[in-house]
Amino acid sequence: MALLSALATEIFIPAGAVVGIVFSLVQWFLVSRVKLTPEQRALPDDSDDRKNGFSDGLIEEEESINEHIVLSRCGEIQRAISEGATSFLFTEYQYVGVFMIAFAMLIFLFLGSVEGFSTKSQPCTYDPSRMCKPALYTAIFSTVSFLLGGFTSILSGYLGMKIATYANARTTLEARKALGKHLLPHSGLVVMGFLLASNGLLVLFVTINLFKLYYGDDWEGLFEAITGYGLGGSSMALFGRVGGGIYTKAADVGADLVGKVERNIPEDDPRNPAVIADNVGDNVGDIAGMGSDLFGSYAESSCAALVVASISSFGINHDFTAMCYPLLISSVGILVCLLTTLFATDFFEIKSVKEIEPALKRQLIISTALMTVGIAIVTWIALPSSFTIFNFGEQKVVKNWQIFLCVSVGLWAGLIIGFVTEYFTSNAYSPVQDVADSCRTGAATNVIFGLALGYKSVIIPIFAIAISIYVSFSFAAMYGIAVAALGMLSTIATGLAIDAYGPISDNAGGIAEMAGMSHRIRERTDALDAAGNTTAAIGKGFAIGSAALVSLALFGAFVSRAAISTVDVLSPRVFIGLMVGAMLPYWFSAMTMKSVGSAALKMVEEVRRQFNTIPGLLEGHAKPDYATCVKISTDASIREMIPPGALVILTPLIVGTFFGVETLSGVLAGALVSGVQIAISASNTGGAWDNAKKYIEAGASEHARALGPKGSEPHKAAVIGDTIGDPLKDTSGPSLNILIKLMAVESLVFAPFFATHGGLLFKIF
Amino acid sequence: MALLSALATEIFIPAGAVVGIVFSLVQWFLVSRVKLTPEQRALPDDSDDRKNGFSDGLIEEEESINEHIVLSRCGEIQRAISEGATSFLFTEYQYVGVFMIAFAMLIFLFLGSVEGFSTKSQPCTYDPSRMCKPALYTAIFSTVSFLLGGFTSILSGYLGMKIATYANARTTLEARKALGKHLLPHSGLVVMGFLLASNGLLVLFVTINLFKLYYGDDWEGLFEAITGYGLGGSSMALFGRVGGGIYTKAADVGADLVGKVERNIPEDDPRNPAVIADNVGDNVGDIAGMGSDLFGSYAESSCAALVVASISSFGINHDFTAMCYPLLISSVGILVCLLTTLFATDFFEIKSVKEIEPALKRQLIISTALMTVGIAIVTWIALPSSFTIFNFGEQKVVKNWQIFLCVSVGLWAGLIIGFVTEYFTSNAYSPVQDVADSCRTGAATNVIFGLALGYKSVIIPIFAIAISIYVSFSFAAMYGIAVAALGMLSTIATGLAIDAYGPISDNAGGIAEMAGMSHRIRERTDALDAAGNTTAAIGKGFAIGSAALVSLALFGAFVSRAAISTVDVLSPRVFIGLMVGAMLPYWFSAMTMKSVGSAALKMVEEVRRQFNTIPGLLEGHAKPDYATCVKISTDASIREMIPPGALVILTPLIVGTFFGVETLSGVLAGALVSGVQIAISASNTGGAWDNAKKYIEAGASEHARALGPKGSEPHKAAVIGDTIGDPLKDTSGPSLNILIKLMAVESLVFAPFFATHGGLLFKIF
Repeated sequence: MALLSALATEIFIPAGAVVGIVFSLVQWFLVSRVKLTPEQRALPDDSDDRKNGFSDGLIEEEESINEHIVLSRCGEIQRAISEGATSFLFTEYQYVGVFMIAFAMLIFLFLGSVEGFSTKSQPCTYDPSRMCKPALYTAIFSTVSFLLGGFTSILSGYLGMKIATYANARTTLEARKALGKHLLPHSGLVVMGFLLASNGLLVLFVTINLFKLYYGDDWEGLFEAITGYGLGGSSMALFGRVGGGIYTKAADVGADLVGKVERNIPEDDPRNPAVIADNVGDNVGDIAGMGSDLFGSYAESSCAALVVASISSFGINHDFTAMCYPLLISSVGILVCLLTTLFATDFFEIKSVKEIEPALKRQLIISTALMTVGIAIVTWIALPSSFTIFNFGEQKVVKNWQIFLCVSVGLWAGLIIGFVTEYFTSNAYSPVQDVADSCRTGAATNVIFGLALGYKSVIIPIFAIAISIYVSFSFAAMYGIAVAALGMLSTIATGLAIDAYGPISDNAGGIAEMAGMSHRIRERTDALDAAGNTTAAIGKGFAIGSAALVSLALFGAFVSRAAISTVDVLSPRVFIGLMVGAMLPYWFSAMTMKSVGSAALKMVEEVRRQFNTIPGLLEGHAKPDYATCVKISTDASIREMIPPGALVILTPLIVGTFFGVETLSGVLAGALVSGVQIAISASNTGGAWDNAKKYIEAGASEHARALGPKGSEPHKAAVIGDTIGDPLKDTSGPSLNILIKLMAVESLVFAPFFATHGGLLFKIF
Repeated sequence: MALLSALATEIFIPAGAVVGIVFSLVQWFLVSRVKLTPEQRALPDDSDDRKNGFSDGLIEEEESINEHIVLSRCGEIQRAISEGATSFLFTEYQYVGVFMIAFAMLIFLFLGSVEGFSTKSQPCTYDPSRMCKPALYTAIFSTVSFLLGGFTSILSGYLGMKIATYANARTTLEARKALGKHLLPHSGLVVMGFLLASNGLLVLFVTINLFKLYYGDDWEGLFEAITGYGLGGSSMALFGRVGGGIYTKAADVGADLVGKVERNIPEDDPRNPAVIADNVGDNVGDIAGMGSDLFGSYAESSCAALVVASISSFGINHDFTAMCYPLLISSVGILVCLLTTLFATDFFEIKSVKEIEPALKRQLIISTALMTVGIAIVTWIALPSSFTIFNFGEQKVVKNWQIFLCVSVGLWAGLIIGFVTEYFTSNAYSPVQDVADSCRTGAATNVIFGLALGYKSVIIPIFAIAISIYVSFSFAAMYGIAVAALGMLSTIATGLAIDAYGPISDNAGGIAEMAGMSHRIRERTDALDAAGNTTAAIGKGFAIGSAALVSLALFGAFVSRAAISTVDVLSPRVFIGLMVGAMLPYWFSAMTMKSVGSAALKMVEEVRRQFNTIPGLLEGHAKPDYATCVKISTDASIREMIPPGALVILTPLIVGTFFGVETLSGVLAGALVSGVQIAISASNTGGAWDNAKKYIEAGASEHARALGPKGSEPHKAAVIGDTIGDPLKDTSGPSLNILIKLMAVESLVFAPFFATHGGLLFKIF
């Protein structure tokens, strides 16, 4: 048995989560000390704040820009953004709420019907000598955990958005300081990372303990019901990513096309009517969507690991500590990230903008190294030295050090993916510089080089994922894959912070521009933003890498529960599934990209209309009608998120019901292997284009200056590339993670139904 | 036994091929009657030619353009193009020749080593009661058939190019006629289609008969050796497609970027130094490359069908007629296409440019309908009513009507793919018009809509391919797939003609421009060219659809020969193969697109240099230095075709040798399911962009005129899209067909070696 007692486990897991929450509240307090209203800022010179460096000399004091006006504008803009984001999310949640309820009923009906809504106990599937709880109750509990997962996901997204909008105006204000210590919009990020990670863990832990009150010793049923949690999380993430992604990019593309290209006014200029919608979009798409997405990955990989463990020796022998190994890893992950954050902020001070990327990289390396130690300790104390894991119909003997290797290989593969992503999307390296260079001959070569860059950036991450899969699969079958995914996600708190860095900096820059701050501040936030593009791409790399592992683990769990022992490519049913599955990411991307395109066209027309009909708008005498643009983005994204959402959600149901579990296995595998590639290439291509543009704008080297300045032909070509990259990197690319995960977790939840009643079409013919 | 005797089969197959060759020679004679030199054209009014409509009144006579100068210019240009193309192909063949010899030695060594170069006869693999020829001799014969396949492929490409260059100036001259009958550059296309199809069939048939002299009753060895023919054909096709594709697009993109975008001179203007290279490129890339490609598909699907048949009841019972069923289908295909051509040219006269697309569509439908009857007859007379097919370790009983359905489903799936491609790439339908419309808001939305269109266009073709696979796989395992591929390729003569339509029209337009003909002629050839873009996309649709089926069939044959009975996705070795395989098309595309981009940049610099340094060039007083541009394209394509070529050729060798047949199976399946999608979407996106541009230029509707004219902002945006589409549709997209086929056929040829000595890495650890 494990060294750690069940009681200690019961204490340790929530403890990690609670520490994370407390820490994030402390950081929130620090953020909130940056005041947005002029009155609050007027502190005496010798106050504590000033001593603590919270009111260092401001750049603008040197330039005598009116402090009062700037501050009140900042506050106003931040309120507008926050209100827009909140109102969008509430509209979205209304629609999504209806979907949740409908889908919950579907889950109940499908799962309940497996045993004809019988309320009798039945022999367990994997240990027929014992009696398990009736399928009807498992259907009810699955439905409940589905709703809980959805709710937690919504909460994650919503909190993330709130924190981000709270933090971004404050980041702008911090950027005004002459000293560089607070260049990292750090505290806001930390709040988000820790709050979301802790929240996800805590809700899951509490749910398991509550369900255990009913299930008692029937762990098979218990963890079967818990998979609903993953499905709920992922369904919300789907709508969050797709709806938010369409929202943000419709506004962004629309604003840029008229503002930057036609009217030649700067990005985020307050005269542009779409500018508030654009900033709202950053918060609802990149932050709320991404928060839901990573929470979904986390919930699903935990569920996948738990469901496999429940039919392995941990579950059969009722070894609670070993059973909770995945949650322990997550709990340690939170503590490790906390340590890393302390390192990053207090031991290495960031003195200039150039140091941001290295600092974030260092943070990744430190957290990975510390986490490796953490994993070793958890594995040593929580797992027996030898045990068995369910492996498609047979039990496979596994040693604890093998599980340590599985988790570590996932963790380190994540780091490699992060570094490769950085190499391909940061303008400090040759790939992005080559893309920038190709702008000399116009937009066409820029696009060709950018697409080629994205394709190329797939190679190493795929090898990294393949090696993780091989190692963990060979050692511990699907349990190995699931814990490898958890390993990759164990530094989720840092990962979330790094990912959110981009949109927060982007918004900070927008607010600086809109509030009429000095151009030196805009330059600073632009540099933050360039670093942010890279970190956002790194975050997306983590998201897609872990999504690949998670969905494979879910796929394995599905196969186990559907009682399939081989998925043979040499069977026509599987092969056609593989083929069609590989097509789904294309279908999905076609929908989302077209949606962004159409919504952007509408936005362009509205912005043009306002410039043409509102007198004095371009001269800055009149205020644009921001609300109409916000409404266009909202309506478009709500309407357009339905077809791609339906595609993802209905495919497993249709394929499973009519073509059966074999074809469905093929579809899942096909979508996985094809979707990963498109997702990685789309997000890196987009990131590279964005940074190629920033590279030309910043003009930090001889080469960059030869291509610039803003408004030159190469710069115009770069702007076109950037605009094309927007839907790729922020809408279709990241949504594909969810496509592959959601289809897998949905298949897993519905597996008992498909296995019993599925494959109608083949049964008829 | 079959109704058709073995002797009748021996006569019927070559007869079809010979009829095809004779027919194409007759058509060649018709083409050659259009004279290019002024002297030859100066015929008396009452000569036969004039009576036959070969010298109808010319448009230009009305405009009094100097006939003599125009004609001599035409001849000059056609000579320059022909010389450039010939010299490039010879340079290419030198490098490829070296590769062929080296690879031939490799084949001999690998296959010879399977049984340690033993010259002793051995028991047959699938019928151990009989003795088969020694492995060493099969290695020798495989090597010989590899060289023969390569040689035939080279011959196909070369002849295609010669015919095309011969035909294109003549098409220009025909376009000058006031009457519309000869608007279709038809005879030239017919020559190519029939010559290549017949040539491929004849060489294969003769090779089988010659090999039989040695092998006698050992059909297992005989058809094992014949697979080398497919490998040879495909290897050449790879270099033809990649080298030619880079050549043509480097020149095209380079010419457009400086000419159309910077200098604002028309496409194909003789002042543009890269214009000859561009026209040469159309012939070496689109024609020679495509000829090799389709020949390769044809050779491979025949080989796949034959090798499966040889270990089925046909081979075991030595039923020669049934064995030759695949060749009989091809032979009937040639006759059916011949009939269709007569229909198309003589019964439906084309009166205006608008009727070209419907006419080509009609031709496809007629040939498909006739072919269905042809298949029924061949199946009835050549196959016994019941027989067995080898199905991964067991023999499966199959009825002849099932085989009829297999071939037909492939044939009709091809038609569906053709129609869908037409819908998505022709500017007569809304998808392309929407893309054109998105140019209103600039290049970025154009690119976003174009990419979305390409992704969307994948859906129906994939379903069509999946259904064909399901039907033919269920009925007759891998034999079914192979004959379905042959069904799709049975109308290859028509398909080739339709595919070649684009580049020939494109070149005809180029020659009209360069020879200084009336703009009315250019308008005509532009309309031909727009139709040609669609037909080229249809041809690519056929090529990729058949490639998918062919490579699945080859994959099946490989699996059979490597003695694998299941390819289980739930095995880590297979899964990582699947993942990495799905990545290969991205890696490959990254290489080819970057190559085109870099070569185009070089071309741009050279063209700019010439405009800047040659005085009077832009005014038309001085002649540009065409030869330097030709040299840049040649050098770039030869150099750049090596890395992608190496990737494709080395991958199966490395994976098979170090990771073994299971992982290799995964790689093949992954590359297949992922490559098909990218290939279809890339070629349709490119085609749609090209036609969106043409749609704006032609201004045939109210909507189109609102976007135009040439030089307007929407038109500039459309030109950017067109330029991006060039490498997608003519380099990376079509090369992917070959990637998936070549890896499969290579694995098949090396299967005995991999099965015996492969998987070193897993053996060590």
